[in-house]
Amino acid sequence: MNNLSPKVQNQLSMLQQIQQQLQTILSQKAQYEMAVREAKRAQEEISDAAEDAVMYMSVGTVMMQKKKDVINSKLAEKIETLELRIKSLEKQEKMMQGKFEQLQAQIKAALEGKVTPTAA
Amino acid sequence: MNNLSPKVQNQLSMLQQIQQQLQTILSQKAQYEMAVREAKRAQEEISDAAEDAVMYMSVGTVMMQKKKDVINSKLAEKIETLELRIKSLEKQEKMMQGKFEQLQAQIKAALEGKVTPTAA
Amino acid sequence: MNNLSPKVQNQLSMLQQIQQQLQTILSQKAQYEMAVREAKRAQEEISDAAEDAVMYMSVGTVMMQKKKDVINSKLAEKIETLELRIKSLEKQEKMMQGKFEQLQAQIKAALEGKVTPTAA
Amino acid sequence: MNNLSPKVQNQLSMLQQIQQQLQTILSQKAQYEMAVREAKRAQEEISDAAEDAVMYMSVGTVMMQKKKDVINSKLAEKIETLELRIKSLEKQEKMMQGKFEQLQAQIKAALEGKVTPTAA
Repeated sequence: MNNLSPKVQNQLSMLQQIQQQLQTILSQKAQYEMAVREAKRAQEEISDAAEDAVMYMSVGTVMMQKKKDVINSKLAEKIETLELRIKSLEKQEKMMQGKFEQLQAQIKAALEGKVTPTAA
Repeated sequence: MNNLSPKVQNQLSMLQQIQQQLQTILSQKAQYEMAVREAKRAQEEISDAAEDAVMYMSVGTVMMQKKKDVINSKLAEKIETLELRIKSLEKQEKMMQGKFEQLQAQIKAALEGKVTPTAA
Repeated sequence: MNNLSPKVQNQLSMLQQIQQQLQTILSQKAQYEMAVREAKRAQEEISDAAEDAVMYMSVGTVMMQKKKDVINSKLAEKIETLELRIKSLEKQEKMMQGKFEQLQAQIKAALEGKVTPTAA
Repeated sequence: MNNLSPKVQNQLSMLQQIQQQLQTILSQKAQYEMAVREAKRAQEEISDAAEDAVMYMSVGTVMMQKKKDVINSKLAEKIETLELRIKSLEKQEKMMQGKFEQLQAQIKAALEGKVTPTAA
């Protein structure tokens, strides 16, 4: 490490930061995707129930009794919100991925450039 | 790092990728296994209850009142699905493990091959 | 690694430890912040409900039926506690961040000091 | 890395494995400790409730209505089981920690032994 130029060292630490940010984005996206799948499964499950079936919906640690159609529209709203967030994360992911590849290419070029004069 | 051949550098980054994929598979498997254990514990718990006991089953954030036998068959179905997924993950795990060991052997061979001429 | 002085090696491992502690603090903070958001969403959700609406509040695996105003004050209490913990974590975070930057500067200085005589 | 002896390389990879196992143990312990805290909070919460208060207990995705004293004894049982598991994990943790320190000392000794002849 200590024979790398300060510039390359800096690029390497930026690369690591981008990698961590990408991981954060991907794990967030995975969580939202799971929440969407759960909400859709809940919608399916509800669709079989009678209009007056006893149901609760939880927000954090609180469960409230609600009517089937209220729960249904709340689930639809939730899915919509989550899908918007997923799209926004996918944009960020692509941007980060682009930055990552660019930086990686710069570091590769710098390292190869450095190796050549030493070998000569 | 910069005195490693591009081929070995490439193999090392593939090794790292496989390791990450293996970790993803293992953590997914652990989650499914926990869900199976939970579903089996729920089945046991239910088996003691009266046929008309008040029970709810949750799907995501929604809880619906259901009869004992309905919950029982839903749990059985869930366990079956999860066990199929676990088996599929175990196949992937073995395949990845095989790739990992193969790549590791190739890298070792390449590094040892590289050291010898320099020492000569 | 083995051409680094024992002092710098020690500083590097301290740096890594601080980084891990920072990550622990940040992930804890993120969890508390999510719990605050959830509790606030639950408060909003409750505010629309009738005084005699059927509600439950969960503590771990136990759900207890409670009146709206009881749940409301419990949520307010919870938010207050969590916000105090978040503030305390933010203090720790700043302190750790300070230590991290100080150590990073020391390592950089040591590494640069080491490179110069070799080049001379 | 490639100038380290195969023995030291092997010890380093063992060190990494132990570190990962330690992390697994610690995160498992943290989960059990959190479950104990939750169960104790649920006990406290229950102690204020009337004998005939409506309560549910969840096992995985199933919630069953149970009487206060039944939930109380189930919680006590759960706490006992978890505390035994925590003790067992603490034993494993100490053993691993011992192995870790031993291996670390061996690697240090090997690296210092290697550096000296080169410097001579």
